[in-house]
This record gives sequence, structure tokens and C-alpha cells, in this order.
Amino acid sequence: MHINRIETLAANLRQRGISAAAVLPSAGLFYLTGMSATLSERPLLFVFTAAGEAMAVCPAFEAERVRRDSGVLELLTYTDEEGGAAGFARLAARLPQIKVVAMEFQAARLLEYKLLESACGVTDLTDLRPILAAQRMRKEPAEINKLQQAAQLADAAMAVVERNIALGVTEIQIAEAVEAYVKARGGRMSFVSIIAGERTALPHASTGSRPLHPGDVVVADLGCVVDGYTSDITRTFLLEGAPAQLERIGAVVFEANRLASEAVGVNVEAGYIDDVARECITQAGYGQFFTHRTGHGLGLEVHEEPYIVGGSKERLQIGHTFTIEPGIYLPGVGGVRIEDDVCVTATGALSLTTYPRAVKVVK
Amino acid sequence: MHINRIETLAANLRQRGISAAAVLPSAGLFYLTGMSATLSERPLLFVFTAAGEAMAVCPAFEAERVRRDSGVLELLTYTDEEGGAAGFARLAARLPQIKVVAMEFQAARLLEYKLLESACGVTDLTDLRPILAAQRMRKEPAEINKLQQAAQLADAAMAVVERNIALGVTEIQIAEAVEAYVKARGGRMSFVSIIAGERTALPHASTGSRPLHPGDVVVADLGCVVDGYTSDITRTFLLEGAPAQLERIGAVVFEANRLASEAVGVNVEAGYIDDVARECITQAGYGQFFTHRTGHGLGLEVHEEPYIVGGSKERLQIGHTFTIEPGIYLPGVGGVRIEDDVCVTATGALSLTTYPRAVKVVK
Repeated sequence: MHINRIETLAANLRQRGISAAAVLPSAGLFYLTGMSATLSERPLLFVFTAAGEAMAVCPAFEAERVRRDSGVLELLTYTDEEGGAAGFARLAARLPQIKVVAMEFQAARLLEYKLLESACGVTDLTDLRPILAAQRMRKEPAEINKLQQAAQLADAAMAVVERNIALGVTEIQIAEAVEAYVKARGGRMSFVSIIAGERTALPHASTGSRPLHPGDVVVADLGCVVDGYTSDITRTFLLEGAPAQLERIGAVVFEANRLASEAVGVNVEAGYIDDVARECITQAGYGQFFTHRTGHGLGLEVHEEPYIVGGSKERLQIGHTFTIEPGIYLPGVGGVRIEDDVCVTATGALSLTTYPRAVKVVK
Repeated sequence: MHINRIETLAANLRQRGISAAAVLPSAGLFYLTGMSATLSERPLLFVFTAAGEAMAVCPAFEAERVRRDSGVLELLTYTDEEGGAAGFARLAARLPQIKVVAMEFQAARLLEYKLLESACGVTDLTDLRPILAAQRMRKEPAEINKLQQAAQLADAAMAVVERNIALGVTEIQIAEAVEAYVKARGGRMSFVSIIAGERTALPHASTGSRPLHPGDVVVADLGCVVDGYTSDITRTFLLEGAPAQLERIGAVVFEANRLASEAVGVNVEAGYIDDVARECITQAGYGQFFTHRTGHGLGLEVHEEPYIVGGSKERLQIGHTFTIEPGIYLPGVGGVRIEDDVCVTATGALSLTTYPRAVKVVK
């Protein structure tokens, strides 16, 4: 349990008149307790009250593990034969005053919400996500240290990609070489690597078993996890014979990445960073082919607040960490994306990823 | 898209007066469309109406992939800048009559539900899970074929476990040998293998880096996925010097597994199978140490309906496929579990897993 983080949450709940936060296994739960767990058909719900108490409804046979992994000592358990509702009835008896509740809309299932609603008579449900995000966005120094380690591992993994690119090698072979490299260094991939030698006009193209051909464009998008914290990097490589247009858009994307990174500063609105990248690409005539936002926060999740999206009024602060990843995707031709992880410091963006950014022709 | 399955679902919705099923990425969605996707912060929701129509709210930049992977042609898209609510507004304009909705409580997030609720003015929300489970439980012959392949791979993987058990070998080393074996044969693990040489008194103990010691009990619980369908097997091995009590409880668990399997038949209540296993263990004096249900359904999910749990009135039918996995967990001593996958046939249980069941002392 991270007592300080739970106390800050409790203060934030009190300030908003919310009686408790009800949290499923999620990055939010990991942030508060250090426990990670997968969702199952058996409901599992942690409750953090405005008074600072912590408890959980959990399956009886998981109690020992839940107590050990979360540090939460007060468990309201139920057996398989009783079913989850029995655990929620025990919660309602323990906390009869729980009527105004916050849950993470992005992580909470209807399963637990419906059980909580009928057991406790919840009258008001608020999204916990923005409340917790305000805490989670400002990374503590120890968190930035882990993000930096994750980014350094991603840089090294990208070098593995570049070394493995060759005619006839399949996308999956490259992805496997990367995974083995990262695993051998005690890390793991934070998402399924995208090594796209075709279909690069799809921003979230998947990795396939097709061997690389002359003239392919290879978009490599990967991330590593170190101690729960993640990185996310994209570089683009061209095989000899690739359409000349891809080198041109490569230069545009490089410039958009550079300008956006230079625009980062304390109190700058997140939407402005997106504006800068988009303006650069639009000026070059490719605005309609930059089909996604410029970036997303990074931390315990590979996509989290702050989102670097047009219109966002979120003001960047020291410790905010996010990607800058402009891209241009030309249907029928191919795509280019260049993605870095940056952390806001008093003097601007510190790029945690440092692998050479320029789109490179691989021989 | 599996048109027949979607039509059956539509008929089930009409019968219950439900206007549409709203489905997030889940095993249910895979069952209906063949598409698998991970949840992200960007809402993605498929809608299957009682009239048999299929459509989806999805991020604009994912549209091509969603259309290709799901076969659903009608997409109500939104850009990052607009945000998800814009997609849901388009859905509400397209389907103004959607007021009575079913969603899978176990898979659906508050995120999509809240967007749907405010865009469409949902008045009534039903759990889609039992409706879809009634369809999914009765496996089609092609599905049973895949389940059998997954079980055979799990049998072979268990042989890898047995071959690798030796003093000084770590739990993780055994798990890695299994994973490499399964991967080389085109399968993948359906969950993180539990190879527990200590803490076996915890049913969901995790795999650790401790080397095996004389007298250890090794509970190996693993499953493989073949074409989306899963298996799940547990066997228990004793290293020389293990407490004699573990051999005794091993014999009890073996007998409980056998009796429960023999009790399977068409129209038998699922709860009765649990009763049979529990009665056997209780008679032997260990009832309080059998701390979980006897089994769970298997298919696209490693835990699904029918659940083999005390009190369940679910009547077994031909094609139902589930685990039988009694166990005894003695705090401070160790645990034994023996788990098989069985399919209901006209003449009783067909065990898909066949690896020798008896608890064995490994030299």
C-alpha cells in the first residue's frame, strides 16, 4: 500500500463530497496498493473511503494473496457457493453510508458496479479517472527514474530492430528478436510490438508473417516495461527502392516531432503541442493524412493522461510524461511515424528516448 | 461475422423485448464476429439489434481494421479531437429506438455504458452474459474439435513439466520450457502457467524463481489455446521426501475427480457434480480444505459457463465443456489438485485431457 497516495486520494474525495472510491484491478489500483491482478468472473473490488480506510470485497480463496499483494487487511470475502453478492452485502453492512461513489469508468465493469449499486443503494456515480489522473500525472522522481530505464531499454530494442531488418526476414521474426532481447534484460514488452512492413498506412497495423520486400517501409512501434512503468517508441525505416514520396514525408514528420518537442513547457496547454505538430504537417500539404492525436501520457499505462490532443486545455506541469508521435499515412503508399517519450522539466521537454529519429534507408 | 450466431442472438433479444445488444471487445464479440481487440481508452462498441443489424462505434483511425477484422460494415466513427461522445451521438441518430439494452456485465465498462446511456437515453439495462452464454455453452462440432486439440496440446505440455521436474530447477524454468514447447507447436498458453513448488496451499499460487527442494509438492496448472479455444489441466507431483499426508490427500483428490467425472450426464444439474466431488473429500475428512468450486466451463474463455458450483441448477447438455478440478489445500503442508477438461456426450463425460491423473512421486 502507498499510504501517502491513498491519503491524497481521500483528501480529494472529501473535497468533492464523494464518500468512497471503488477500484477494480487496474493501473489505478496498482498505483494505490502495488497490487496487480487480472479480472476474472469473480468480482474483486477495493474500496478507499473519504476517511482514509481501505478494504476489499474478494473471493474467500484469494484472500491470502489479496492481503499479501495489496497490503489491504480488511477483506469482505465470499465463497464460490455464496457468490459475489454475499461479499457486497458484507460491504454494505460495514459501510452503510456509501451513497456517492467514484469509479474509474475506463477500468470498472458493470459487474462490480451493479453489485455495488444494489447492495449499497448508490445514488451518485462519478468518474474516478480524472481525480486519480491528477495525482498520477505528476510523476514522482522515483517514477521518472523507472520511466527513463524503460525508455533506455526501448532505445536498445530499436537498435535490435534496425540490426534485424533485411530482405526476406519476416515482421514476426523481428518482433521475436526484440522480445528475446528485452526479456533477457529483465524487462517485458508493454504491448504487442508493431513491426509493419506492409499495411503501414494503418496506424495500428499488426505484425505479420510476410517477409520484407525491396521498397518496403518498416514502421516499428514498441515499448518496454520496467518495474511497472512503460516506454513507447516508433521509428520508420525504408528499404531500398521505397517510393521517394516516403522520404519526403519522413522529413516532414521529423520536423513535426522536433517542433512539438520544442513547444513543450510548464503551463503550456496540451492541445497547443498537437497544434504545433499538426500545423507543420498541414503546411506541407499532408494534414488530412495525420489521422490521430499527437501523443498520450505514459506511466503505469501505455496510454494515460495527459493526452496531447487538439483542444485539450490541460496545462503541462513538471513531471508530466507523454509521447510525441506525429505520423503521415498515405493510403496505397505507406506510413511514417516518429515517436518519442518526453518528460516536462522546468526548462522544457527532456526526451527519454534518444534513438536517432530521422527516417533511414536501410540497405 | 458469424451470421448464424448473430441471427440466433437477434431472436433471443426479440423474445425478451430487448432492442439491442451492445458488445465491447470480449470473448462474446469474438464469438459473434471473429474479431479480437484489446480495450483502450478510446471507446469501441458493437451494436447488434433485435432486427439483426450489426454496427459499431469506433475510432476513425481504426475503422479499416475494425471493418476487416469484424466484417461489420456500418461504422459510426469519431476522431480523437471529437472524442467518443461524437460517435455515440451518431449511433443515437441512427438507432433512436434503442432504450432497452443488454450488455455483458462481466466485460462491459462503465465508459461505454455511460456514453451509451447519455446518447441514447437507455431506460433498461439487462445482463447479456446469460443470454449469450446459453448460445455459447452448447459447443458446435467444430468448436469441440478445437477444444480437443487444445487439450491434447496441454497433455503434451504436462509431459514437458514432468520431464523437467528435478531438484534445483526453478518453477520459472519449468514454465518457460512448457511455453517454448507449446509455441513451437503453433499454440500459446491461455493463462500464466502455475508451477508451484511452494505455497501450494494457495490455489492460485504464482510461479516463482525458487529452485525445487527435496520434499516439495509441485502443482502444475496450465492451458493452451488453439484457434481461440482453450484447455486447462492440473497435475500434482511430489518430490521424494514429501510429507506422507500429501500422498494420502492425493488419493482422495484422485477419487473425487473420478467420481465427479462419472456423475456427468445429460440433464444432470451442474451443482450435483460439485456435490459428488465435495462429498468424497468431506467423507475423507478434508471438506474444509476444498476451498473452491469443482470446475468451470471452457471455450473461448478459460472460465465461462457452465460453472460447476454447489447449488447450480444449470442442466448439463450435449456439447457443454468444463473442467473437473477438485483440490485439497492444507495450510503449512501443501496442496493437491487434479484437473481435467470434459465434454458432455450422450453417454456421459468424454475427458479431453488424458494425461495420467494419479499424484506421482518423482525421483
